[in-house]
Amino acid sequence: MSVIATEKFQVITNALQALREQKPLVVNITNYVVMNNTANALLAIGASPIMAHSRQEMAEMMSFSGALVINIGTLDSQWIPRMIYAVEQANLNNKVVVLDPVGCGASTLRTETSRQIAALANDLIIRANASEIIALAGETAQSKGVDSLDSSEAAVDAARYLTETYHCNVVISGEVDYIINAENEVTLHNGHVMMPNITGMGCSLSALTGAFAAIGEKTGLAAAAILGVAGEIAAEQSAGPGSLQMNLLDVLYQLDADAINTRLKMTVK
Amino acid sequence: MSVIATEKFQVITNALQALREQKPLVVNITNYVVMNNTANALLAIGASPIMAHSRQEMAEMMSFSGALVINIGTLDSQWIPRMIYAVEQANLNNKVVVLDPVGCGASTLRTETSRQIAALANDLIIRANASEIIALAGETAQSKGVDSLDSSEAAVDAARYLTETYHCNVVISGEVDYIINAENEVTLHNGHVMMPNITGMGCSLSALTGAFAAIGEKTGLAAAAILGVAGEIAAEQSAGPGSLQMNLLDVLYQLDADAINTRLKMTVK
Amino acid sequence: MSVIATEKFQVITNALQALREQKPLVVNITNYVVMNNTANALLAIGASPIMAHSRQEMAEMMSFSGALVINIGTLDSQWIPRMIYAVEQANLNNKVVVLDPVGCGASTLRTETSRQIAALANDLIIRANASEIIALAGETAQSKGVDSLDSSEAAVDAARYLTETYHCNVVISGEVDYIINAENEVTLHNGHVMMPNITGMGCSLSALTGAFAAIGEKTGLAAAAILGVAGEIAAEQSAGPGSLQMNLLDVLYQLDADAINTRLKMTVK
Repeated sequence: MSVIATEKFQVITNALQALREQKPLVVNITNYVVMNNTANALLAIGASPIMAHSRQEMAEMMSFSGALVINIGTLDSQWIPRMIYAVEQANLNNKVVVLDPVGCGASTLRTETSRQIAALANDLIIRANASEIIALAGETAQSKGVDSLDSSEAAVDAARYLTETYHCNVVISGEVDYIINAENEVTLHNGHVMMPNITGMGCSLSALTGAFAAIGEKTGLAAAAILGVAGEIAAEQSAGPGSLQMNLLDVLYQLDADAINTRLKMTVK
Repeated sequence: MSVIATEKFQVITNALQALREQKPLVVNITNYVVMNNTANALLAIGASPIMAHSRQEMAEMMSFSGALVINIGTLDSQWIPRMIYAVEQANLNNKVVVLDPVGCGASTLRTETSRQIAALANDLIIRANASEIIALAGETAQSKGVDSLDSSEAAVDAARYLTETYHCNVVISGEVDYIINAENEVTLHNGHVMMPNITGMGCSLSALTGAFAAIGEKTGLAAAAILGVAGEIAAEQSAGPGSLQMNLLDVLYQLDADAINTRLKMTVK
Repeated sequence: MSVIATEKFQVITNALQALREQKPLVVNITNYVVMNNTANALLAIGASPIMAHSRQEMAEMMSFSGALVINIGTLDSQWIPRMIYAVEQANLNNKVVVLDPVGCGASTLRTETSRQIAALANDLIIRANASEIIALAGETAQSKGVDSLDSSEAAVDAARYLTETYHCNVVISGEVDYIINAENEVTLHNGHVMMPNITGMGCSLSALTGAFAAIGEKTGLAAAAILGVAGEIAAEQSAGPGSLQMNLLDVLYQLDADAINTRLKMTVK
C-alpha cells in the first residue's frame, strides 16, 4: 500500500475500534421498509440505534445522540416537517447529518425535499447511488424507481458539485464506491453483485455512515469500506439474498482489522 | 400433462423469464408489518419494488411503473385516501391493480374499504385467503383475525361472484390455491404446512402477482405457482419459520423452469 | 427443584401447551421497527397476531381478541390517542394490557405516555428493562437511548413500587429477569449475551407476554422463561445476531417441555 493508502486503512480500522468502544447513539428517521435492517446493522457493528421522529422529543434525543440519519425512502407530507425539525435540532447541537435521498429524481417531491434538507444541514454527509447524486445535483438522471441505472463514475462530477454547493462530504455507492470531499477522492472496489438483491443495503450504509460520523469519521470512508468488505464476505457464504441479509449481520458483528486488511480494494487520488 | 396443462406450464415459465428480463417496477402501498418482506420477495424474483404512498408523487410513480399492489393490512383513515388516489392514478395510466384485502371480514372498516377499492380499479386482480374472499363477497365468513378458518374450496362460489361483480381475476390462496377467472379455473397443490407460520406469506404472493401482471400475466397463475413451488422447496430445507423466511428468498432467486416442472401440481378445469 | 419451583415449572409448560391449543389472538400496537419480528415471534410460538391500530376498528378487534400489547418504540402524537383508545377498549372487554414502555426516561414524551397508559389499563402487565422501570417509577434513571444501563436488580424496588401503584404485574428483563407481583418474586437466569445485539428482543418478549396472558398466564413468567430458554438455545447455534434472529423463530417453533426442563434456571423467593 502507498503511504496515503496505509493512512486511510488506519482511519478505517481505528474508526471501527473507536465505534465499538464508544457505542455511539445514532438517531434515525428512516423509511418503513428498512427500519428493522437499519437498527440491526447498527447493533451488529456495535452502535446504538434510536428510531425516533416525533418533534415532541427530538430536541432531547439530539442533545444526547452522536449523529442524525435522514432517509426519505417512504416520504410524505407528514414526515417532511419531522425531518426538517430534526435537522434543525442536529444543527443546534452541532451534530452531523447523513442524508440518504432515496429515489431522488424519481419524483419532484423527493428531489425538492432532498435539496431542502441538504441546504439546511450544517454538517452534512450525502450517501446515495449514482442516479440520486445526479438528480440531486440537477442534471438529467436516468432514474428507474429507487434503483440506480448509472455507474458511480457517471456521478462523480455531480458529486463534486454537491461538495461545493453544500460544503459536504459525498459517498456514491455502487459497484465502485466513491468517497468524495474537498481534499481527495477514494474509490472502493469491494462488494458483490448479489448485494442489490436485498432491499435497504444502501440504507444500512447510510446508517453506518452516521455511526462512524458520531465518533468523528466524517468522510464516509470507514462505513463504505466496512460494508463493502462485510457484504463481500457474507455474499460468498450465501446461496441467495435471504442468506445474504442474515450473514451480513453476522459478518458485521465479527469483522476485525485482519479481514479488512485482507479484503480491502482501495485506490486514493 | 394435458395439452391445456402444458400450455399453462408454459405461461408460468415464460412469465418468469419475461419478468427477469424486464425487471418491472411495481408500486406497493402495503402494511407496515411486511414492507421489508414484500420488497425482498420482489427483488429475489427479479422485479423492482417501489414502496411509495404520498399523493404528491403517486401520479409520477404510476406513470413509469408496471402495476400497483394495494394491501390493507395496517389500515387507517390516513392510508385509505392514499390507496384510493393511487388506484385512480393506476386507472389513468391503464395499469393493473392487485388488491390484498387483509382481514376483510374482521372489521367493517376493512370490508368496506376492500369493496371500495375493488369497485374503483379498472383492471383488477384480487388475491386473498378464503375467509377474506367470502367476506368480500358479502357472505358470512368465519373470520378469525387475519388468518383464514375456511378451506379455499369453501370460497370458490364467492370468488366466482367477485369475478362477475368486479370483472376481475381472483386468486384464493391456502392449502390449495384457486386461480379463477371468466375463462377457466386452475387449482394448485403446492406449498407446505409451515408457510402460514410466517407473517406476510400472502402479502408476498400479492406483490409477486403484481410483478407478473406488470409483464402481462394477469391471471395470478404464475405468481401462485412460483410461490407455492418455492415455498415447498424452502420449507423442506427449513427447521422452522425463521429458516423458511430466509430460504424462501434464496429459492425465489434461484428458481428455474426445471424446478417448477418437477414440482408443480396443477389441475385445470 | 423445590415444591414451589416445580409448581412454577408446571405453570410454564402448561401455559405453552394451552397457547398452542388455543392459538389466542393478540392485538399489537407496536413500533415500526419490530412489527415483523413481533408478528413472527407470536406465530412461531403458536399464537395469532393482529397488527391493527385504527380507532375505526379497535372496538371490533378487542371484542374477539385475547389481549392487547402496547409498545411505544416509535411514539408520536398520532399514535398516542390510538393507544389510549385501544386500552379503553381492552378495559371494556376485560382484556389484559401489556405495556412495553420503550425508551421511558429517554424523553418526557415517553415517560408521560407510559404513565398515562399504565394508569388507564385495568388489568396490566409492564414488561421493560431496568432503566425503563426505574424511569417509569419516577426515580433518576441512567437511560441511554432505548437500551438499559442498569442491572435488573437495581430496578427491583422501582418494580415493587409499580406493582403497588398500578396494581399490575411487572417483568424486568435483562441478564437476569425478575417476575414481580404482589405474591412473590421469581428470577430467571437464562438468555445469552448476544441477545441485546438484535433489535426488538424485548418487544418480542412483550408480545409473547400478551399471548400467554390471553390464555390466563398473567404473571409474565411463562413468556420470560420461554424466550430466555429459546434465546439461549438459538444463540448457541448462531455465529452472530443475523443467525440468532432466524434461529430464535425456529427454536420457538420447536420448543417443548423437555428443553425447558433441561435449561430453565429459576429461583423463587
